[in-house]
Amino acid sequence: MTGTPAIGVDIGGTNTRVAAVDRGNGTIIEKESFFTDPLEGAESFLTRTSEAIEKVMGQIEARPDEIGVGCPGPIDPFTGTILDPPNLAGLHQVKLKDEMERMTGMKVTVDNDANAAALAETHFGAASGEKSAVYVTVSTGVGGGITLNGRLVSGKTGNAGEIGNMIVDPGFSGEQITSSGHMGSGTLERLASGTAIGLAGKEQLGLSGKAEEVFELAGEGNSGAQAIIDRAIGYLAIATANLANTLDPDVFVFGGGVMKQKSVIPKLAELTRGCLYPSLAGTLDIRSAALGQDAGVIGAALLPTYRQMDE
Amino acid sequence: MTGTPAIGVDIGGTNTRVAAVDRGNGTIIEKESFFTDPLEGAESFLTRTSEAIEKVMGQIEARPDEIGVGCPGPIDPFTGTILDPPNLAGLHQVKLKDEMERMTGMKVTVDNDANAAALAETHFGAASGEKSAVYVTVSTGVGGGITLNGRLVSGKTGNAGEIGNMIVDPGFSGEQITSSGHMGSGTLERLASGTAIGLAGKEQLGLSGKAEEVFELAGEGNSGAQAIIDRAIGYLAIATANLANTLDPDVFVFGGGVMKQKSVIPKLAELTRGCLYPSLAGTLDIRSAALGQDAGVIGAALLPTYRQMDE
Repeated sequence: MTGTPAIGVDIGGTNTRVAAVDRGNGTIIEKESFFTDPLEGAESFLTRTSEAIEKVMGQIEARPDEIGVGCPGPIDPFTGTILDPPNLAGLHQVKLKDEMERMTGMKVTVDNDANAAALAETHFGAASGEKSAVYVTVSTGVGGGITLNGRLVSGKTGNAGEIGNMIVDPGFSGEQITSSGHMGSGTLERLASGTAIGLAGKEQLGLSGKAEEVFELAGEGNSGAQAIIDRAIGYLAIATANLANTLDPDVFVFGGGVMKQKSVIPKLAELTRGCLYPSLAGTLDIRSAALGQDAGVIGAALLPTYRQMDE
Repeated sequence: MTGTPAIGVDIGGTNTRVAAVDRGNGTIIEKESFFTDPLEGAESFLTRTSEAIEKVMGQIEARPDEIGVGCPGPIDPFTGTILDPPNLAGLHQVKLKDEMERMTGMKVTVDNDANAAALAETHFGAASGEKSAVYVTVSTGVGGGITLNGRLVSGKTGNAGEIGNMIVDPGFSGEQITSSGHMGSGTLERLASGTAIGLAGKEQLGLSGKAEEVFELAGEGNSGAQAIIDRAIGYLAIATANLANTLDPDVFVFGGGVMKQKSVIPKLAELTRGCLYPSLAGTLDIRSAALGQDAGVIGAALLPTYRQMDE
């Protein structure tokens, strides 16, 4: 395996990246990227993807025979079907695995982009060498992936690691729960994503709705902006504490735009410790993602090797 | 392995059970039990345990060479030390693994009792044949264990599966979190254990403080008692939904006194579905524990085989 490249495809709402990746050290050997333009439809997107793969393969000596694809969720990782990700309108219900296997003649493994990034950070990034890791990405939404012994924990339906759906402050108490109507309420994504921070900035401070502006204002000493950020980090701390209590991973790795902001990670670590008993607080290890934007395409190339849902 | 017995020891606040267990089918071949009497001190307890082990081994043909011990937490499963479980006063800080290895000449593996029960239910109980399971026990406290491919998920410090410590309703919002003071606040154990139900019965209905009385009164149609139970089940539903979103296990298994009460499990399944997106709600599988009181001692005997923390 070591040294044999695989093709990684990282589908983003804006750009799609294609790369030949050395699976032995995570190095990107060759890469291409193109504007995703999901509204152009499936056929056009699949053709562009195949062309980019061919181009990458034409530039390298080794012959990769496997393709891994990371894609914004929700997807069905078993069948490799894109379901209905909001930023991929026009590609909904596309049977990505089947179509790409037909077009390339190679085996294709599809999973969500956060799971791919989790694999990359586990093998060649911030969690390298660790037995277990929880990766969390906080940007427009909140996603995640869990690895154990270098492999993804996929779950029965492929939905393990959907950390953004964790309820961290129900806003309703136990006696108010009914058999319907709580989907999405009080979830980490609704309370702590970049979208949530931006929305609070709009509602409370009259800003444009972008999270960046809230961070900028907080950096200038605005206490209202700082309170919005602290609130989001507080909810991230509850989620992190809950994951520490249930999975007790060797390391947490946080990536995504929100986590790149100065002082977010130290503050998160401090508040998470405040929610844990001393034995876990003392061993808590929270790190910044190390691979940045490349995590998606590197991790995609690792999917065929390290995600085995039917084992 | 199949058919070779191991010795399981299940230390309870009241009784300690010792059994020779066939690891191939989970059958108890021989068993002994004695009153734990933790206040008698470590030496007396260890002597009684050794005597019970000898007695069990004297009654069977095969020669077990491994002992597994399930013990109420908190414990340190790496060193096999009992830390400070409230119902084992007198045995605090006992180096159970070292002492028992010295006394018996056999290899001893110690873990918490909920992890042991999780192993038993995974191999020979309600989750038998499933790839992944989350076991939750709700009685005086709330405990749990997670299994993947038949093995325990132990975590970095051996604290994985401490589901009772999950924060399900902080009672403080994100902006109120500080670096200390939230330990234990809003946790599942505080809101949904038998102790919590009993306490609510005492405070709200003037009962004695036992959960059983609240269930009895609810069975007679008392709406206040029913509300207390529904509230606890609501919080269990939030926790179950959070675990479904993060681990997406094949099956949840619920055991313990509270879960034996009529209609608790169907209600829990209904409310948990109310907190999940349709894809996960549709595949949610919640089952009652199958092995009852024997889960502890059977699972203890499985610990040497299926818990490998240093792999």
